[in-house]
Amino acid sequence: MKTFLECFPCMMSQALRAGRMASDNEFLIKKVLDEVGAMIKDIPMENTPAESGALVYKKISDITGVIDPYKEIKQQSIKEAKSLYHEMKKEISKSKDSLLTAIRIAIAGNVVDFGMNKKFSLSEDVKHILVQNFAILDYKEFQYQLKNAQNILYLGDNAGESVFDKILIEELGKKVTYVVREIPIINDVTYKDAIDSGLNTVAEIISSGTTAPGTILQLCSDDFLQRFNQADMIISKGQGNYEGLSGVDRGIFFLLKAKCPVIARDINVQENDIVLQYKKPI
Amino acid sequence: MKTFLECFPCMMSQALRAGRMASDNEFLIKKVLDEVGAMIKDIPMENTPAESGALVYKKISDITGVIDPYKEIKQQSIKEAKSLYHEMKKEISKSKDSLLTAIRIAIAGNVVDFGMNKKFSLSEDVKHILVQNFAILDYKEFQYQLKNAQNILYLGDNAGESVFDKILIEELGKKVTYVVREIPIINDVTYKDAIDSGLNTVAEIISSGTTAPGTILQLCSDDFLQRFNQADMIISKGQGNYEGLSGVDRGIFFLLKAKCPVIARDINVQENDIVLQYKKPI
Repeated sequence: MKTFLECFPCMMSQALRAGRMASDNEFLIKKVLDEVGAMIKDIPMENTPAESGALVYKKISDITGVIDPYKEIKQQSIKEAKSLYHEMKKEISKSKDSLLTAIRIAIAGNVVDFGMNKKFSLSEDVKHILVQNFAILDYKEFQYQLKNAQNILYLGDNAGESVFDKILIEELGKKVTYVVREIPIINDVTYKDAIDSGLNTVAEIISSGTTAPGTILQLCSDDFLQRFNQADMIISKGQGNYEGLSGVDRGIFFLLKAKCPVIARDINVQENDIVLQYKKPI
Repeated sequence: MKTFLECFPCMMSQALRAGRMASDNEFLIKKVLDEVGAMIKDIPMENTPAESGALVYKKISDITGVIDPYKEIKQQSIKEAKSLYHEMKKEISKSKDSLLTAIRIAIAGNVVDFGMNKKFSLSEDVKHILVQNFAILDYKEFQYQLKNAQNILYLGDNAGESVFDKILIEELGKKVTYVVREIPIINDVTYKDAIDSGLNTVAEIISSGTTAPGTILQLCSDDFLQRFNQADMIISKGQGNYEGLSGVDRGIFFLLKAKCPVIARDINVQENDIVLQYKKPI
């Protein structure tokens, strides 16, 4: 997905929010805004928003000297999601279709996104998403591919959400490789966050090698690309991964809540819709 | 009022909105965002937001070649407000306190603001504001000064709102000078808009001389400054005028709806509150 005009004011909002996370020095945060503002002319609209995001968040770290402004928030999110784990497992055990309920729970986890302007409450939002209608639900294809898959590549998105990913992975019942970001960026899930979420008990955890808040294949490691090409089934969580992969010639299942109006428009759904979409190879 | 950090992402949103009003050429609008982004480093936080707004909107006009992107919208707003004129006059005639109702109506007109991200419906919003509690209501002082005033300086804000200003001016029953912007900026009221709103039948219309979307005394004409200093009573409508005048050593009545979180915080009210506030000379 390309960068749309709306993405540029949003970059400035993100720069302000992350700047405030990293520092309470107003002059330093103004410098962040100055420099991110000045970068806009160098960001082509052909970039995916996630690529542009990598540049913006790198700039924020460079100026503030804080590499991981969302470190504590990520820990809190993981803790909160873990506190809901048993309740979620109960939802699955009492549901008629445990796989679909696990998919809903994994999408509910996708509200934990500090790159967005929106406020969220994990415990409240999950209740809503458990009964929300899907705008797109390619569930038969999902069941079919799952049945036939030997190995599944699962692209993680945010820390906290990762705990709910674990719940879905437990329902998949297959060999899963869980993919995290190479470095801390926004509140995206890293190797450490995945371990803290308990994902090492259900999946092999690898890094995509990318420093972007999404999966940009040109920026990924050779090891990741090999696994990406060889996986029997790919599950991509969240908006950042969608941004990088929506135009890629590969069958991918996108699981997300369309929190951003630009992405909703790109998928052709309404804002706040939930989606399990299969994109076939081109 | 100074520029706060939140104002910078907001400037980019305004640049995008005004750029789209002026042009449907995506590359030209990107150029607007590039150049407004690059300007941020030159905008000190000591500026009032209205001063910064003048620079931003000038840049948009320079790049797109469109001096008045909101021209048609302003005409529509005036037409819509005029269609509500008789209904509003009826509200006044049936109310117990016609002056206070006219003040409410004038504040209701303040929702017509295309500088803001918010959507509004004049006919719906006015119903709400007619019964909304004031967060600040310095009404006794207003009545006292009105009773003793020979000449009143009334600082207009937006086109459309100007029709509702006329309603209040009719209730004031005093000699009023209505102040407009020197040039078209956002949807702010200009001389032509004031004439189209019928204000020439109830007030003398003058320009403040400023090209900013607010009253910045350093940018105003000598003629305006003389009237500003000599007026018995000053009524300032809207956020842009508040931004420029909130720190000025002069007694001023501010009438506005706090649509922006930064201004609400500065006034110490909640977002969407309505205010009739008297600021004494320092």
